[in-house]
Amino acid sequence: MGRVVFLNGEFLPPEEAKISIFDRAVNFGDAVYEVAGVLDGKLVDFEHHMQRYRGSLEKLEMESPLDAAQILQAFRRLVELNDLDEGLVYMQVTRGVAERDFDWPADIEPTVLMFTQPKSAGESTASEAGIRLASTPDIRWARRDIKTVNLLGQVLAKHAAHEAGADEALMIDADGYVTECGSMSFFIIDGDSVRTRPLEGNHILPGITRRAVIALCESKGLELVETRFTLEQALAADEAFVTAASAYVMPAVNIDGQTIADGKPGPLTRRLQEIYLDYARQSLI
Amino acid sequence: MGRVVFLNGEFLPPEEAKISIFDRAVNFGDAVYEVAGVLDGKLVDFEHHMQRYRGSLEKLEMESPLDAAQILQAFRRLVELNDLDEGLVYMQVTRGVAERDFDWPADIEPTVLMFTQPKSAGESTASEAGIRLASTPDIRWARRDIKTVNLLGQVLAKHAAHEAGADEALMIDADGYVTECGSMSFFIIDGDSVRTRPLEGNHILPGITRRAVIALCESKGLELVETRFTLEQALAADEAFVTAASAYVMPAVNIDGQTIADGKPGPLTRRLQEIYLDYARQSLI
Repeated sequence: MGRVVFLNGEFLPPEEAKISIFDRAVNFGDAVYEVAGVLDGKLVDFEHHMQRYRGSLEKLEMESPLDAAQILQAFRRLVELNDLDEGLVYMQVTRGVAERDFDWPADIEPTVLMFTQPKSAGESTASEAGIRLASTPDIRWARRDIKTVNLLGQVLAKHAAHEAGADEALMIDADGYVTECGSMSFFIIDGDSVRTRPLEGNHILPGITRRAVIALCESKGLELVETRFTLEQALAADEAFVTAASAYVMPAVNIDGQTIADGKPGPLTRRLQEIYLDYARQSLI
Repeated sequence: MGRVVFLNGEFLPPEEAKISIFDRAVNFGDAVYEVAGVLDGKLVDFEHHMQRYRGSLEKLEMESPLDAAQILQAFRRLVELNDLDEGLVYMQVTRGVAERDFDWPADIEPTVLMFTQPKSAGESTASEAGIRLASTPDIRWARRDIKTVNLLGQVLAKHAAHEAGADEALMIDADGYVTECGSMSFFIIDGDSVRTRPLEGNHILPGITRRAVIALCESKGLELVETRFTLEQALAADEAFVTAASAYVMPAVNIDGQTIADGKPGPLTRRLQEIYLDYARQSLI
């Protein structure tokens, strides 16, 4: 059986899943999304994804057309129909279809779409060997706390990183501080101290894997400091890693062609990979 | 006959104009657009819209699937099929359809969509009486020189302006300087001097009507200064106006509930309305 996606309550082949050219996602990027990991055919950390999803909608004055139970049911059905063992499920809710006008009308029905993607072989390899980053100015808008599809800043950053021979972008703000990666949160380790940029000021996305890693550090007695740091500090770190729903915890071993420490995934990163994977497995529903 | 829109070479009823949920406009806002005015059933300032369109594509490393002659032909056919006398024609070119991944694949076919909108009665009224603005922080990304559909900053600004009882947003940068309106360029007049923010630094969109007004001031011997100014300076101006393809030159008479001068459209603004309309009529094709 071929791939099946979800659109407004229906399970369809991808070629039949189409939306109006007047959907506000098309004309304005007026939509939020979530990406949740799938492991052993089950969902990772679903409740926290639902929390962020509700927050994104609220910040854009949107309401969810589906409750968490309905979303879980649809996710599970998609995973089953696509025979997905490991990968991710993507959900996007758009403001809906309306005559083009910047402000939205009061009576508008959201569009809901979902699809799955299997884990790529590249992700498994990168999880072992670590990824290379390329620094780039963070040119995104000021509401990075909302997970919207206004993603051109990240698209251009990732493209530039690939052109530079790297796997992922490391975005740097106007003051020289690291924000995060193109589609991943970023952490460094100095000695025993795990560091990542705080959420304050809406400079980064509240990553769901990021949240879990912070909570796990705290529960395991590891020092976790939410603090800003520069590109130079990142280059001088003992270890570095990225987190994402699609990647879990993944070592970062090189920035702009310079290795971090000896260029190999560090021991604390390895330990956090295991700790996170345990957590992810326990969270499966 | 009902409304007709354009999608990838076909002229269709709106309800049949649908694109894939995997179109990169849907998932990333990875698309550029243009809006050109229609007057007496003909196109206003078409060549300059094409220039900006090519610039937007180039900055995103996209190529136009249609040349200017083909776009003109499609625009004219749309205007004819929709029996449009006055209004606008909208064109959007998306990167195309691909499996979701931030960076784009080399082999991807752009999606092209177009539609017309008639001029609203409100626009004609506002052109006479002037519009009210509400100031709001400019939270957009750093590449405002590219006319993309990553428009949530403008959407939220316009929504907030409407909530505040105004017609349009006036966006203010982090240093307190006016950038532009939600979907319009902004000008003030101090004595004989017409002022608007310069394009440098990519802080504003290179408006096509803005460009024409600047050129017309110069050719008519009016003093035109491209310079930054603050919200306070705008409030203290003798006159103010906005420009857009959909609105031409339109007086702005109020910001945040405070009138500009006596709250009535000023004489130089009226003169520029006439000068621009003459230009627009001469540019028709």
